[in-house]
Amino acid sequence: MTVSIYPGRFDPVTAGHLDIVERAAKLFDSVIVAVFEAPETQTTFSSKERRNLFEEAVKGKQGIEVRTFSGLVVDYARQVGASVIVRGVRMNVDFEYEFEMALMNRKLAPDIDVVCLITDTQYQFVRASLLKEVARLGGNISGLAPPNVIAALAQRSGS
Amino acid sequence: MTVSIYPGRFDPVTAGHLDIVERAAKLFDSVIVAVFEAPETQTTFSSKERRNLFEEAVKGKQGIEVRTFSGLVVDYARQVGASVIVRGVRMNVDFEYEFEMALMNRKLAPDIDVVCLITDTQYQFVRASLLKEVARLGGNISGLAPPNVIAALAQRSGS
Amino acid sequence: MTVSIYPGRFDPVTAGHLDIVERAAKLFDSVIVAVFEAPETQTTFSSKERRNLFEEAVKGKQGIEVRTFSGLVVDYARQVGASVIVRGVRMNVDFEYEFEMALMNRKLAPDIDVVCLITDTQYQFVRASLLKEVARLGGNISGLAPPNVIAALAQRSGS
Amino acid sequence: MTVSIYPGRFDPVTAGHLDIVERAAKLFDSVIVAVFEAPETQTTFSSKERRNLFEEAVKGKQGIEVRTFSGLVVDYARQVGASVIVRGVRMNVDFEYEFEMALMNRKLAPDIDVVCLITDTQYQFVRASLLKEVARLGGNISGLAPPNVIAALAQRSGS
Amino acid sequence: MTVSIYPGRFDPVTAGHLDIVERAAKLFDSVIVAVFEAPETQTTFSSKERRNLFEEAVKGKQGIEVRTFSGLVVDYARQVGASVIVRGVRMNVDFEYEFEMALMNRKLAPDIDVVCLITDTQYQFVRASLLKEVARLGGNISGLAPPNVIAALAQRSGS
Amino acid sequence: MTVSIYPGRFDPVTAGHLDIVERAAKLFDSVIVAVFEAPETQTTFSSKERRNLFEEAVKGKQGIEVRTFSGLVVDYARQVGASVIVRGVRMNVDFEYEFEMALMNRKLAPDIDVVCLITDTQYQFVRASLLKEVARLGGNISGLAPPNVIAALAQRSGS
Repeated sequence: MTVSIYPGRFDPVTAGHLDIVERAAKLFDSVIVAVFEAPETQTTFSSKERRNLFEEAVKGKQGIEVRTFSGLVVDYARQVGASVIVRGVRMNVDFEYEFEMALMNRKLAPDIDVVCLITDTQYQFVRASLLKEVARLGGNISGLAPPNVIAALAQRSGS
Repeated sequence: MTVSIYPGRFDPVTAGHLDIVERAAKLFDSVIVAVFEAPETQTTFSSKERRNLFEEAVKGKQGIEVRTFSGLVVDYARQVGASVIVRGVRMNVDFEYEFEMALMNRKLAPDIDVVCLITDTQYQFVRASLLKEVARLGGNISGLAPPNVIAALAQRSGS
Repeated sequence: MTVSIYPGRFDPVTAGHLDIVERAAKLFDSVIVAVFEAPETQTTFSSKERRNLFEEAVKGKQGIEVRTFSGLVVDYARQVGASVIVRGVRMNVDFEYEFEMALMNRKLAPDIDVVCLITDTQYQFVRASLLKEVARLGGNISGLAPPNVIAALAQRSGS
Repeated sequence: MTVSIYPGRFDPVTAGHLDIVERAAKLFDSVIVAVFEAPETQTTFSSKERRNLFEEAVKGKQGIEVRTFSGLVVDYARQVGASVIVRGVRMNVDFEYEFEMALMNRKLAPDIDVVCLITDTQYQFVRASLLKEVARLGGNISGLAPPNVIAALAQRSGS
Repeated sequence: MTVSIYPGRFDPVTAGHLDIVERAAKLFDSVIVAVFEAPETQTTFSSKERRNLFEEAVKGKQGIEVRTFSGLVVDYARQVGASVIVRGVRMNVDFEYEFEMALMNRKLAPDIDVVCLITDTQYQFVRASLLKEVARLGGNISGLAPPNVIAALAQRSGS
Repeated sequence: MTVSIYPGRFDPVTAGHLDIVERAAKLFDSVIVAVFEAPETQTTFSSKERRNLFEEAVKGKQGIEVRTFSGLVVDYARQVGASVIVRGVRMNVDFEYEFEMALMNRKLAPDIDVVCLITDTQYQFVRASLLKEVARLGGNISGLAPPNVIAALAQRSGS
């Protein structure tokens, strides 16, 4: 049985993240979405909000669980019995960062592997911080984030 | 149960390929190495030789099977019941090509996914055609290819 | 009045090429599709066939004309009174090549500029040579090339 | 008639920006330089100063108008009747960002296109924030920014 | 006689930096490690601490001297009689930044050249800020930084 | 004393190559230009012609010697007592290839280092094969190759 972990800030979860986690759930026996507990001043939503937004968005999907974590990803992976870290990659810049992190993670924990899933064409330009900026400026982001996230972003923008 | 397929020319198999297939064997229930039957004029080793070299190199490893195939990768994946295609990626140029192929494959077969494993640091510069050139010019490639491949390349170089 | 030129081999024209030429036709007063007369041994379709396939695919569209040319793109641009060369770019590798060509062209003809249009998400993985390979191996390329090209490729594959 | 828009922070305008806007003015009937009203704390010059510096630098050039805007670029483009967004691209990192923005903008406003002009060789290394750092450290930036900007930067550096 | 300069923040020095400086010391008659005096609020270690950490790490090595500097790298290079700036490059993103800086430096000082050494495979994923994050989260960074730096990071993490 | 080697096909030498070799001659005590004896069918000019064209182009320059070689670059470097391989890099694609070769070379010969010099802005788009194509199509390549090479290319084009 292969348990996988899908770590990130998810500030907030996008349609691209959902696509990746659902694909991972087909490849592995289970996927634990691991929401990083970043300092509150660094994120738009608190770690609890980020976890809740992701949880609502995957409600009813089999084999997906959403939790928060702190510390090193590889340590948390070991703690929950995951042997593989899942990452979604968009275009090049993403990949270079993933590359660096993957090599570092394999140095820290050679027993845990990293698999990259390639972001679907329709979500290539979907990045959480860009989504937030577009939403804040009044742009229409339907289809780029789950409905509960769109509602949460609208509320944040004071609309 | 998740069957995976690891397609390529493997002309010949390198230490980098072996690393990827062994890591894939840990992630999925089984891995079918699918050696592409390219026209003989385009490869150094025939498809039968390429299959045999790979088979010898993984002898005794659990969950790895080596076969040859022709036609589209996604068609062969379906035929053998694989739901995921495994690819190893080295630096950037590799990734861009993989990106294109992954998106094309997902268009051709949305039910089959592609996972990229990141090549280990020590094999980042190992590419089959470069290995062959180095071997032909008399360079020492020990550690960069399995012993049976090194012997086969030495024989081809007429040494 | 700004006349633009859209040069390429178009061996054969793809849905991505069509998207670029139609977008260029909205931006400039006219677009001349300039099919490069490459040596017949280097292309799947002859230059006349490539011109005809493109012409059929844009039949009835305003402001688009399809011709063949030989020699330097910038010389042909001057000859037809074009002041801008249009290029479609997909992911990174494309862009680096376009970059080099654009700088060379501007050295050869500082009066003629180059504009890059970014390929639509849905055509990011569509490259003529990949399309031909997929078609040859029996893959379904509907939506990735105009119907007349799909028919021509099927015929070439002897089906 | 094609109206184009050239959006940016222009904090401050560089010789590379001037090259792009003058080339755009030859390609399209008019270019509106759209200076983004970023929060004052995020920029070296206020939006009014950035607009004035750009305006002085293009004084007397035909078909170029400089304004400030807030909100989404595509919304402002529609408001001023522009059907195309002009962007200058330097090396790779630039392009990847432009790529993402272009795909997002086309999702938000499919009727507005994005054209990329390739930065001239002599300005490849000219980035506003790097220019400011060099100027602050006493480096000679003549030729890399218009004279009025060089004077403004010198004044800011307290020299 | 060729004096070289190896400038950077070195906040703190990593095993990758040490590898580069030792290789540079073999290529040129001497190497001056030039630690940039960045504002204290922007770095984890003060410029004096960064200089000391580097100095301890290269103690006893021939032809390497560690100093701090402020102002432009090229001005400091001239001041110490260096005719070449040494830079280590890891993967792509690094290189693009180095590219820009190298072209800018050559514009500012055509008499001073820039040479890039390629980071050894085993240090490809070693970046000072990533090291600090891993150390802070309790990860094992032995082999990725000199022992004195590992001790200094442990102390900073309050352990 | 540091002897350097600058290997390549140089089919033919361009203004970009000359810029690199002259800069290398300033950095190291001597530079040996090592023209690779590729099979005659793979090059436009024979190895003897390529050597002669390079030799004429650097006539009178101090510290530069032009030779031909076969076999591995690192073996030839050792044979001539060179401790460093010089490479010029243009944009990204170049660099990725250089990266791979540098890591392979350091595996084959850890005692020989590789330094990359960044191609000057004005030669960023100058690649030997592109130059040949432009020359063949009648384009003006003055300034992009030394005069003797321009003459040789004109003769080859049958003009």
